[in-house]
Amino acid sequence: MSGTLGDLGEFGLIGALTERVPTGRHVPLGPGDDAAVVAAPDGRVVATTDLLVEGRHFRRDWSTAYDVGRKAAAQNLADIAAMGAVPTALLVGLVGPAELPVAWALELYDGLRDECAVVDTGVAGGDVVRGSSVMISITALGDLQGRAPVTRAGARAGDIVAVAGWLGWSAAGFAILSHGHRNPRAFVEAHRRPEPPYEAGPAAARLGATAMLDVSDGLIADLGHLARASGVRLDLRSELFDIPAQMRDVARALGADPLQWVLTGGEDHALVATFPAGTALTARWRVVGQVAGGGPGVTVDGEEWSGGGGWDHFGG
Amino acid sequence: MSGTLGDLGEFGLIGALTERVPTGRHVPLGPGDDAAVVAAPDGRVVATTDLLVEGRHFRRDWSTAYDVGRKAAAQNLADIAAMGAVPTALLVGLVGPAELPVAWALELYDGLRDECAVVDTGVAGGDVVRGSSVMISITALGDLQGRAPVTRAGARAGDIVAVAGWLGWSAAGFAILSHGHRNPRAFVEAHRRPEPPYEAGPAAARLGATAMLDVSDGLIADLGHLARASGVRLDLRSELFDIPAQMRDVARALGADPLQWVLTGGEDHALVATFPAGTALTARWRVVGQVAGGGPGVTVDGEEWSGGGGWDHFGG
Repeated sequence: MSGTLGDLGEFGLIGALTERVPTGRHVPLGPGDDAAVVAAPDGRVVATTDLLVEGRHFRRDWSTAYDVGRKAAAQNLADIAAMGAVPTALLVGLVGPAELPVAWALELYDGLRDECAVVDTGVAGGDVVRGSSVMISITALGDLQGRAPVTRAGARAGDIVAVAGWLGWSAAGFAILSHGHRNPRAFVEAHRRPEPPYEAGPAAARLGATAMLDVSDGLIADLGHLARASGVRLDLRSELFDIPAQMRDVARALGADPLQWVLTGGEDHALVATFPAGTALTARWRVVGQVAGGGPGVTVDGEEWSGGGGWDHFGG
Repeated sequence: MSGTLGDLGEFGLIGALTERVPTGRHVPLGPGDDAAVVAAPDGRVVATTDLLVEGRHFRRDWSTAYDVGRKAAAQNLADIAAMGAVPTALLVGLVGPAELPVAWALELYDGLRDECAVVDTGVAGGDVVRGSSVMISITALGDLQGRAPVTRAGARAGDIVAVAGWLGWSAAGFAILSHGHRNPRAFVEAHRRPEPPYEAGPAAARLGATAMLDVSDGLIADLGHLARASGVRLDLRSELFDIPAQMRDVARALGADPLQWVLTGGEDHALVATFPAGTALTARWRVVGQVAGGGPGVTVDGEEWSGGGGWDHFGG
C-alpha cells in the first residue's frame, strides 16, 4: 500500500492495520468498538505498558519497521513472561507524522504480528494519532493460569540465581552498529530483534522460582531492583557466564570488555530468576550466582561491579 | 517538588509519581515489578488504549497539567463505561522532554488520581521516557460484572436512541478559547475537564441497551460507526436536544450554530445508546431519536446532516 498516513486518514489506517494483525484466540471482542474484551480465565490479569520513542529506542535508519514491531512486542511480552504469566493480548498505540509512509506502519504491524505469533497471541486494539515524531505505546496483558505472580520481592538467602536467554548480544550489536559496521550479523540481528525466552517464565513459576524479572536495562542494574525488593545481596560469579568466542573477538576488535556487555547490556530480554537451592532446573536455565548474606545489592565475585552500566531514561 | 525531569531521572520520577497515586482496590500488585496484577473477577477484561499528544489533544497554555490528567483518564474510563463495564485500573505512559518541570508531571498524576477516584479506581503501573514533546498514553481496564459487553453492533430497527451526559459543551468551550475569551467559564471548564456519565454505562447494560458508545469525536460521527456496525439508520430529532439558553447566547455571540456543537462537537464523552422501544429509562437518559428503516447512516429530522463535523486524526 503506497501513500502516507495523511493520505489514508485515521480510519483508513486503523482499518488497514486491523486487517493486518489477528487478535488471537484470547480475544472474544477485538478492534472496532470502544474497548476490546480479552479472556482472563485466572480471574486476574497481568498488565504492563511501555513507550518506544524514535531516536531514543529505535532509529529508522538502523532498524526496519518490521524489526521495531518485533522489538516493541518482545519487550512487553517478556515483562508478562517475567511474572510467570502467558500473554493474552497486546494493545498498540502509534503516533506518526502525516508524512510517514503507510508502508512503514504496515510493516511495524507485521513485526508485532509475527512476534505475537511466537506466543500464540495478537493485537486486541489500539489507537493511531498524528504527532511530530514516531512513538509507539504497547500494553501487554497476560494470564497467570492459577499460579501466584513471581515478583521481584521473594528472593531468600541461599537461593540460586539463574538466567534464561541471551545476555550482551544486543549490546554487542549496538557497539558494532555504532562503529559503522554491519557484521557479525548475529549480534546486529540480536540488537534489532531480541529473542526473549518466553516459555521459561511460566516454566520458572512451575519450578518454584522465588523472584524473577526480565533484563531490559542490564543484568546488574535490573538485579539491583530485585535485590532491593527482596532485601538481599545477589552475588554473581563471572566464571559461570558463558561468553561466546565470537563475542570475545568482537569485543577485542572494538576495544570493549565482553563481560561488561553481558553484565550491563540491556534489551536482550533474558529472564533472571532465583530458585531454592537444589531446584532441578531445566536446560534453558544457567546458574550464574547465588543469594548471599548482607545488605541489599549486587556483587560480582564478591565485589562491587566497577564497570558502570544501567540505563536511566532521563539521565545523560 | 522543584526541578526538571532531567534532574530527577527516570527512577526518581517513577517513585514520585507512584507515591502520588493509589493503585485502587482492584490491584493486588501495583507498580514496581515487571507488570501489575489487576483483578478480573468476570473472567474477561475490557481494555482500551489512547494517546494524547501535546499541541494536538492539549495545549499547555490552555490547560493545566491537572486538567490534562483528568481529561486523559476521563476519555479512557468513558470507553470502559461505554462497554457497560466498570473500570478496574489505568496504566499510564508519559513521554516528556528533560526540561519538563517535575511539578507538571506530578500535577498530571494528581489529575489522573482524582478522575480515577470518581470511579473508585487508580493507576496500576506505567512507563516514563524522554522525548522531544509531551505525550501521554493511557490504557484502561474494566470488568463486565458478568454481563455481555454492549457493543456498537446490536441496534435494531424500532429501538430508541438516548444520550446520557453532555453534548456540545466542550466544543463551545473550545470556540470560546479560540476567540481569545475565557468566559462563560462553564463551557471553558467543560472543554478542560469533561464529566462523562460513567455510571450510566453499566446502568444502560442492566436496562438492556442493545448498542452503546461514548461520544469522543462528535455525536453524528460516532453514531455513524454504530450505524455501520449495526447495519441500521439512526434518525435524530433536533427538537429533542435540550440546548441550554447560555449555549445559544454564546453561539450567537461567536456567530456559531449551537446545534452544530451538539451534533458534531467531541470530547464531552457523553454516552449514546440504543434501547428496545418501551424501555423505562432512568432520568440520566434523554431520548434523542430512533432506529429507523433504510441503509446504514445517521439522519437528523429524516435528512442527511449537512453541517459537517467529525474528527480525523490525520486529516485537515
